[in-house]
Amino acid sequence: MVEAAASKATISRIAVRGGIATPGMRALPEEVPVALSFGGTTQAVMMATPNDLEDFGIGFALSEAIAHRPTDVMSLDIVEAEQGFDVQIQLDPALQTRFSARRRKMAGPVGCGLCGIESIEEALRALPQRRDVALTLAPDEVHDAVQSLTLHQVLRAETGAVHAAGFYRPGRGMALVREDVGRHNALDKLIGAMARARLDAAEGVVVLTSRISVDMVQKAAIAGAGVLVSVSAPTALAVRTAEQAGLTLIGIARGADFDIFTRPDRIIEGQKHDVA
Amino acid sequence: MVEAAASKATISRIAVRGGIATPGMRALPEEVPVALSFGGTTQAVMMATPNDLEDFGIGFALSEAIAHRPTDVMSLDIVEAEQGFDVQIQLDPALQTRFSARRRKMAGPVGCGLCGIESIEEALRALPQRRDVALTLAPDEVHDAVQSLTLHQVLRAETGAVHAAGFYRPGRGMALVREDVGRHNALDKLIGAMARARLDAAEGVVVLTSRISVDMVQKAAIAGAGVLVSVSAPTALAVRTAEQAGLTLIGIARGADFDIFTRPDRIIEGQKHDVA
Repeated sequence: MVEAAASKATISRIAVRGGIATPGMRALPEEVPVALSFGGTTQAVMMATPNDLEDFGIGFALSEAIAHRPTDVMSLDIVEAEQGFDVQIQLDPALQTRFSARRRKMAGPVGCGLCGIESIEEALRALPQRRDVALTLAPDEVHDAVQSLTLHQVLRAETGAVHAAGFYRPGRGMALVREDVGRHNALDKLIGAMARARLDAAEGVVVLTSRISVDMVQKAAIAGAGVLVSVSAPTALAVRTAEQAGLTLIGIARGADFDIFTRPDRIIEGQKHDVA
Repeated sequence: MVEAAASKATISRIAVRGGIATPGMRALPEEVPVALSFGGTTQAVMMATPNDLEDFGIGFALSEAIAHRPTDVMSLDIVEAEQGFDVQIQLDPALQTRFSARRRKMAGPVGCGLCGIESIEEALRALPQRRDVALTLAPDEVHDAVQSLTLHQVLRAETGAVHAAGFYRPGRGMALVREDVGRHNALDKLIGAMARARLDAAEGVVVLTSRISVDMVQKAAIAGAGVLVSVSAPTALAVRTAEQAGLTLIGIARGADFDIFTRPDRIIEGQKHDVA
């Protein structure tokens, strides 16, 4: 097990400001190839920011339904490769056997941007229902969740160009925030961190800085969340998928203003939680 | 061959503005699974906005070095699948044989976010050198390129939440703009459109709205561009990769201000081109 590399680097650049060019330095986010391996076989290689790689490994395993709970992972080692990292996960033996069998059945090296899927049908997999999530939120709490995420974007404050995913509980504030150059990676890291901390996703809101494509809805629903909020807008397919899964989807959350796309019954004026 | 689906949809939502909730409608970008198949075998499935799918297919083939020029593609058909599209490409027979052999050598269904790569080494593939690109630009032209991209983001103006990639030639303005919910897809669509229009990438600037991760630098360099500009910031690895490839990388371009990270010698005050 090695320490992950620095998540940022200082790079020289020429700043052009009002027509005047000045040489100087600037912090930028780091990005390295990270392999995710199960039982010694690489399932995916992602370009990622090399922080919180344990969270990333667990979150990826859960999001892809390779593992179903953190205890399904027997061990996790981060091994430095020549130019990146290999997150080596050993699963519970019964799960590993099932995973290896699933891999052997796959026809070839297809799948992209969707973590090793092999068909259009698989891209639109059925999601667990989140209709039973009892959480309600006041509009002020939606605002507070987004504002709190902004305050916790430590890497972004230094480098720009990274996305964040946070888990916010009404009355208790922001529990966890994870950052990455990739928006999917940031959410997988958050999901892994939540699982490792034994937090119940149904008790809070997953908050994002990024566009809500359908895969962000899939990850949030699989993790057990009932409410997904983002600063940016969703795709039409993300809205339809959230509707089917019974997820409350809120987008374009800026200041006190936001759009509720699905399950608005969880947003209730005057239902603000006491601060714990 | 079928017409691609609409690239946007009108979705009902509740707009919360200053605490007042008002039901209404809003346009959102569409997103569907798009399979990219060569010689009848699917190489990747991407979530993409279903416009300009011919450009997407050609651009993906070029970016992934499956084809080397547009004429390597013998035919391209867009076939409607149950819930998405299959872009079916027939390559020149010699290339198809080589591609099939490469696929058979691959061990299994790995690769993700990087279009079917199977190892860390492959993620950091060597790039063609762009040191010989003779293009120079005035600072005003960098500004003009970014401003012009903003004006051409037709889908974004209607829906938000989509990225754009444009090809701008000094003195001649913006030649082409392509949009997609995915930033990689937007750039692949642009590269395909440029190849189909027989535009020489070395004669202009690739302009992006998105973060510059290393794969954006890889795609631009493989397409033959010498200058890459974005509204957003690069990663440190993207800067190092652009340096090695001899590419001029400009980020955080806002108004008249921008940062030059590599090969600043192509930006020359007073070298503004005559408008053709």
